[in-house]
Amino acid sequence: MNGDAFTAHESNVRRYCRAFPTVFTKALGATIWDETGKPFIDFLVGSGALNYGHNNPDIMAPAIEYLVGENILLSLDMHTAAKRDFIEGFVDWILKPRGLSYKIQFPGPTGTNANEAALALARKCTGRSSVMAFTNAFHGMSLGSLAVSGSASTREQGGVARHDVIRVPYDGYPSQAFDSVSYIDCILSDPGSGIEKPAAIILEIIQAEGGMNAASTAWLTEIQRICRTHGIVFIVDDIQAGAGRTGDFFSFESAKIEPDIVCLSKSLSGSGSPLSIVLIRPDLDIWKPGEHSGTFRGNNFAFVTAGAMCKMWSDRKFTAGVERTALRLQTHLDRLVAKFPRYIEQKRGRGLMAGLKCRSPALVGRVHDVAFENGLLIESSGPNRDVIKVLPPITITDAELDRGITILDHALQEQDNA
Amino acid sequence: MNGDAFTAHESNVRRYCRAFPTVFTKALGATIWDETGKPFIDFLVGSGALNYGHNNPDIMAPAIEYLVGENILLSLDMHTAAKRDFIEGFVDWILKPRGLSYKIQFPGPTGTNANEAALALARKCTGRSSVMAFTNAFHGMSLGSLAVSGSASTREQGGVARHDVIRVPYDGYPSQAFDSVSYIDCILSDPGSGIEKPAAIILEIIQAEGGMNAASTAWLTEIQRICRTHGIVFIVDDIQAGAGRTGDFFSFESAKIEPDIVCLSKSLSGSGSPLSIVLIRPDLDIWKPGEHSGTFRGNNFAFVTAGAMCKMWSDRKFTAGVERTALRLQTHLDRLVAKFPRYIEQKRGRGLMAGLKCRSPALVGRVHDVAFENGLLIESSGPNRDVIKVLPPITITDAELDRGITILDHALQEQDNA
Amino acid sequence: MNGDAFTAHESNVRRYCRAFPTVFTKALGATIWDETGKPFIDFLVGSGALNYGHNNPDIMAPAIEYLVGENILLSLDMHTAAKRDFIEGFVDWILKPRGLSYKIQFPGPTGTNANEAALALARKCTGRSSVMAFTNAFHGMSLGSLAVSGSASTREQGGVARHDVIRVPYDGYPSQAFDSVSYIDCILSDPGSGIEKPAAIILEIIQAEGGMNAASTAWLTEIQRICRTHGIVFIVDDIQAGAGRTGDFFSFESAKIEPDIVCLSKSLSGSGSPLSIVLIRPDLDIWKPGEHSGTFRGNNFAFVTAGAMCKMWSDRKFTAGVERTALRLQTHLDRLVAKFPRYIEQKRGRGLMAGLKCRSPALVGRVHDVAFENGLLIESSGPNRDVIKVLPPITITDAELDRGITILDHALQEQDNA
Amino acid sequence: MNGDAFTAHESNVRRYCRAFPTVFTKALGATIWDETGKPFIDFLVGSGALNYGHNNPDIMAPAIEYLVGENILLSLDMHTAAKRDFIEGFVDWILKPRGLSYKIQFPGPTGTNANEAALALARKCTGRSSVMAFTNAFHGMSLGSLAVSGSASTREQGGVARHDVIRVPYDGYPSQAFDSVSYIDCILSDPGSGIEKPAAIILEIIQAEGGMNAASTAWLTEIQRICRTHGIVFIVDDIQAGAGRTGDFFSFESAKIEPDIVCLSKSLSGSGSPLSIVLIRPDLDIWKPGEHSGTFRGNNFAFVTAGAMCKMWSDRKFTAGVERTALRLQTHLDRLVAKFPRYIEQKRGRGLMAGLKCRSPALVGRVHDVAFENGLLIESSGPNRDVIKVLPPITITDAELDRGITILDHALQEQDNA
Repeated sequence: MNGDAFTAHESNVRRYCRAFPTVFTKALGATIWDETGKPFIDFLVGSGALNYGHNNPDIMAPAIEYLVGENILLSLDMHTAAKRDFIEGFVDWILKPRGLSYKIQFPGPTGTNANEAALALARKCTGRSSVMAFTNAFHGMSLGSLAVSGSASTREQGGVARHDVIRVPYDGYPSQAFDSVSYIDCILSDPGSGIEKPAAIILEIIQAEGGMNAASTAWLTEIQRICRTHGIVFIVDDIQAGAGRTGDFFSFESAKIEPDIVCLSKSLSGSGSPLSIVLIRPDLDIWKPGEHSGTFRGNNFAFVTAGAMCKMWSDRKFTAGVERTALRLQTHLDRLVAKFPRYIEQKRGRGLMAGLKCRSPALVGRVHDVAFENGLLIESSGPNRDVIKVLPPITITDAELDRGITILDHALQEQDNA
Repeated sequence: MNGDAFTAHESNVRRYCRAFPTVFTKALGATIWDETGKPFIDFLVGSGALNYGHNNPDIMAPAIEYLVGENILLSLDMHTAAKRDFIEGFVDWILKPRGLSYKIQFPGPTGTNANEAALALARKCTGRSSVMAFTNAFHGMSLGSLAVSGSASTREQGGVARHDVIRVPYDGYPSQAFDSVSYIDCILSDPGSGIEKPAAIILEIIQAEGGMNAASTAWLTEIQRICRTHGIVFIVDDIQAGAGRTGDFFSFESAKIEPDIVCLSKSLSGSGSPLSIVLIRPDLDIWKPGEHSGTFRGNNFAFVTAGAMCKMWSDRKFTAGVERTALRLQTHLDRLVAKFPRYIEQKRGRGLMAGLKCRSPALVGRVHDVAFENGLLIESSGPNRDVIKVLPPITITDAELDRGITILDHALQEQDNA
Repeated sequence: MNGDAFTAHESNVRRYCRAFPTVFTKALGATIWDETGKPFIDFLVGSGALNYGHNNPDIMAPAIEYLVGENILLSLDMHTAAKRDFIEGFVDWILKPRGLSYKIQFPGPTGTNANEAALALARKCTGRSSVMAFTNAFHGMSLGSLAVSGSASTREQGGVARHDVIRVPYDGYPSQAFDSVSYIDCILSDPGSGIEKPAAIILEIIQAEGGMNAASTAWLTEIQRICRTHGIVFIVDDIQAGAGRTGDFFSFESAKIEPDIVCLSKSLSGSGSPLSIVLIRPDLDIWKPGEHSGTFRGNNFAFVTAGAMCKMWSDRKFTAGVERTALRLQTHLDRLVAKFPRYIEQKRGRGLMAGLKCRSPALVGRVHDVAFENGLLIESSGPNRDVIKVLPPITITDAELDRGITILDHALQEQDNA
Repeated sequence: MNGDAFTAHESNVRRYCRAFPTVFTKALGATIWDETGKPFIDFLVGSGALNYGHNNPDIMAPAIEYLVGENILLSLDMHTAAKRDFIEGFVDWILKPRGLSYKIQFPGPTGTNANEAALALARKCTGRSSVMAFTNAFHGMSLGSLAVSGSASTREQGGVARHDVIRVPYDGYPSQAFDSVSYIDCILSDPGSGIEKPAAIILEIIQAEGGMNAASTAWLTEIQRICRTHGIVFIVDDIQAGAGRTGDFFSFESAKIEPDIVCLSKSLSGSGSPLSIVLIRPDLDIWKPGEHSGTFRGNNFAFVTAGAMCKMWSDRKFTAGVERTALRLQTHLDRLVAKFPRYIEQKRGRGLMAGLKCRSPALVGRVHDVAFENGLLIESSGPNRDVIKVLPPITITDAELDRGITILDHALQEQDNA
């Protein structure tokens, strides 16, 4: 069998491999190499699952040691020493310093497993079945998560009606003129509105797939108030925006809110190994033993790397570095916005979770192709795929960041000749 | 923070850790050790996710080498060399020798992700929304999989109505007197039956969680014929029964059927690392690029270990060993059935996927406790949890197997004094 | 505008007017006349809505007097003297003599309004959402009733998925070999069956649209026992089989069961004027005032005629006459079955609610056409429309009955030449 | 059995009889009398089902003649002379003069039967399942209509989740500041909005139960444009606002729109006898024969009275009278608003479909009670029941109207002493 194994045997559903037509092998930090040895700066980082870069040595060293030692790898939800170390690290280095105290649930290891568990728990806690979700939301591909997602193309593939979802406008949708929070408050209070009280409101602090839309602190504060007033469980899906992406560990820290349930996955393991957790306000942890399960919830390899990731947040030098890198990125992007008003409409997002809203999807497609040619991996998002997602590792070196931005700048520049 | 991190911080949902109250550390083959150094024979193997034993050296050695080499770990659905190697191995060592030619889809890495993708594809292919599923089925914890599962306790936790599911009796349900296949055929043919034609029929060849119920070849052949006749997609969820568990790689090989879609996960990676695939009859592979996705579908660590697992099946000595072990296990179980008619009603399952239907759940609970005390991990299943699941690694040594069975024998024996 | 007003202006949905292509004007007893003065014996009686014949003088005389007297016609659910008279008549002449004590709800005046109210109340009483319904059931055309109906062609027109319905086999479905009651009992008791406990079981004692299938007393008794055991509301849809059709007032009298809720409509008004009621076991009458409504629930014209109908049941001569007519009809049908074994498979139904299961739908169509030509209106039913429905007025004269049967006999005879 | 038959035997669900605690007997024009002979002016008219007054002689005379003549009363959808006369009258006197050409479907005779048929047809025409409906809508009590209704208390009684409904804000909801039409346009155009394209938009031109909210011409024109642009079926539920209530025959005439489907019932028969029709744009009439049915769709008594009602609209004197009465009512209400600013916030509605939004539900309750005491029947509506509905017969005499208003005026005046 030769090199076109993918074409011959893999389902037509594959996508990124068409956008980046090469075969990758090595990877370190912000750089990955293909079979020919060509390096690429990675501004895509596994759709946000590699915030700490590829093969981060602080994270991988203990994992290799763990493997070599014939330690237990898969343990369902049995107790293991590696799991205990992770729990302790997460509590001591992440939760406690932020004044948070959540119970930790280990569902299946993917983001959608976490959202499904969160939604099920909210329904169990309230005895209600519907959930309020937002325009342009993305929460995952299994049926429960799909139901609350906004994108027509992904949702339609579910092939069944999406039930029990109350769709409401996100902050600034369809325009800033529209006061979405007042509308939500009104339909929840009016007995004639035709809207049932939902079990939960689920949202992303920054809608990544939806076009890098960042909610304002004022709006988030109001949403939390509405949840408290109406007895609705407030769920933050922090799968893409959390685990350090915005510069803070949680994306909601700067808004000073405290959701009832938080879902983490993607970069949580630090290594790209599948892991997810659901953080639950202790009084809502009414699960009965075994009521929710999942074979791979005991991925000890991921516990080890996740523990190492948590420890990094106890290091002031690390957090200062992330902060500085975020500023550097934002400065770069401001410059690009100023330089290419004919192509770029607006900067989107926050911190290291940034986007450039462009004037057409076609342009974004061409920029993507030129960038790939020149050694940069970037992705687009938004309902019309006209937003360039800029997601470098938060541990990227200045040199790598500058090099990536330079390639992006050139790719935009080249559109003058398109 | 001290050793009760679990009690203090983990969600109440945890279950196995209550049944096996210790902290595990090391694991090799069929044995795992707790912190105190006490060994346990493992007849639970991660609910079927560790068919090849813990830290199988044939599987782990290339993985460690891969990690040390700073090779790419997470790649979404981009091409990587490790992924290509896995695809080629799976095609050459698994599919081709069995005369099968499926397209391979990589959904999210859990079993439920695979089932959700399979169901979505069947709905897309047929334009129908409902799915036919069986009494006592188990297909996973996300909403789409939950909907087709039978167990009331797991399904109810979803908190929303289970839509679009046509529930029909499995082979031999409620008793052999009832001809379930004729009933299914009739309701699909009668325009007044009140049953819509479903997109798919989804089933397990052996219902593991449902009580180790094995479908007969005759029944499976008829179900396949009904699917062909009515244009219904035939999905086999081979997540627990596949990847070698029954002695064959696929659980349906002995029935000589060829499902339209097959879902694999659990032991597919060979290492316990999360991985799943959906095998699709090529003409049903009508996915559009990117229509189904998932961050962790590119788990290269798992590709490496899964490739090593596939290679094992090319080794006659390996397959002969599995066959011999299956016989040895069956002989053991027949002996126990004959010895303890007062406790055991019936042997269930097939090959190395075996069960003992006991006369009461309480008895099973006591046997479990005594076995744990004496160094054996076993699990129960069935709607009333009165079936002892016997799932040793298929690579277990005779000595380990005999030792496990001896502990089980003693635990049963001890019930005379209970 | 000329005589083809129907073709020019009425929706294509019209059906009976195609089967009986003429324009009707007068009607009395079992006979109706068309514009040309041609008389027809009516074995269709408004699909069971005219059990007491057309313009029954005992029923119509007080109605005309009521109208002439400028009495109130529409009153919502306000008190009127006519409503009080009906309630008293229904209690004194129908309920009390049968030892029944139900609360009476007046929903909208159609059968489907009654079934919708009954299902809503059962859901409210139990807090459960699903309902168990049977193969080949028919309960009406609004969404809630449609959901529990069996026929694919009618249900599909709803255009939305039919939710919350557990479909189970009716008595003798698919064959007498299948013990449907044991199956139902088993799936309600087994926590792994995948079947939620329903709010209600709804059924017809004789399935009219489903092919005149009559449930046995033994089966009905078991169904009632299952409802009692599992706390499920037992609803009898007596819309077509009740109000005298079987010879008894309620179709379930001979089975000596006492359903929790009974729905009546069609012949309830005696005059063909729309009226329906829901009979509710008093302790289940937990409606709050105004919780269910309907503009036309106060149809006083119908109250007056319904009251007159109820009074007829206090007359021994009337009931004896109905009994005798039922016997006469059954004797006729037995003779036809014996005479035409090449066309008729089986007699169906009971009392004056009779059917002839024929060997093909085409035959039934031809018999229908010849009968119409010769002055008899009959209808077919069943999923394959191969059952001739024989529904004369229960007040039909012997002469009219014999004449109708003779036309039917000739129409069958003529098939020898077809 | 004595006079409290209602308490003893009628379901607790009864409501109006509690608000108007007496027993009614006679009724003529705008006046009804109770058993004691006390007259009441009727501003409730069967919730809009008696727009032409009680026992209107122009309407009842032909009906009595029809009954006395032993003409056919119930005919399913067979052709009858009375039905033909109605169709011709409706086409000649109602549709043609307004430049409309619809196909006429006769569903079951209640409003909700008509709405269910309209929704089913829209789903069939488009192949889509969801429907867009508005805050504070009311469309009926069967499940399909209930689903699109806004009121929590009525919807919840259905006891099952309301599926496939997209709830959007009505004109001016929650305030005039909110541009509901732009919002609707946006969510239908944005692929990320999370809103499926619906089969239909269903609305009332004036929301009666919702609080007498009248949509503006501009808003209705835009809604019609959106439906045309997106290929959505535009359904007007004209059950309460149509058949003359606003002064025009259809409530949408003044807005110069032409809906794809119009549902009529309530006052359509002119007599209070149950009748409803669905008007269908001819190219949407894709029903197959018999695909939708209903026993009571052939209510010939109602055909006769409805035909007489239609004829009235051909009389200029009649329409001029209605117009004058509408003006007289509006003048009265303007005066009340000016006189009682402490009690009345706003006049609502249009023409003879009027409402007074009051400052509290308690006030409305007290006004209702005093008015009843003094001989006036009025009703309230709105999600908080703080709107007095003023629905006199459109044929009311000036003297009766003035008398009713005087009683209302006094009842308001008396609140100064409350």
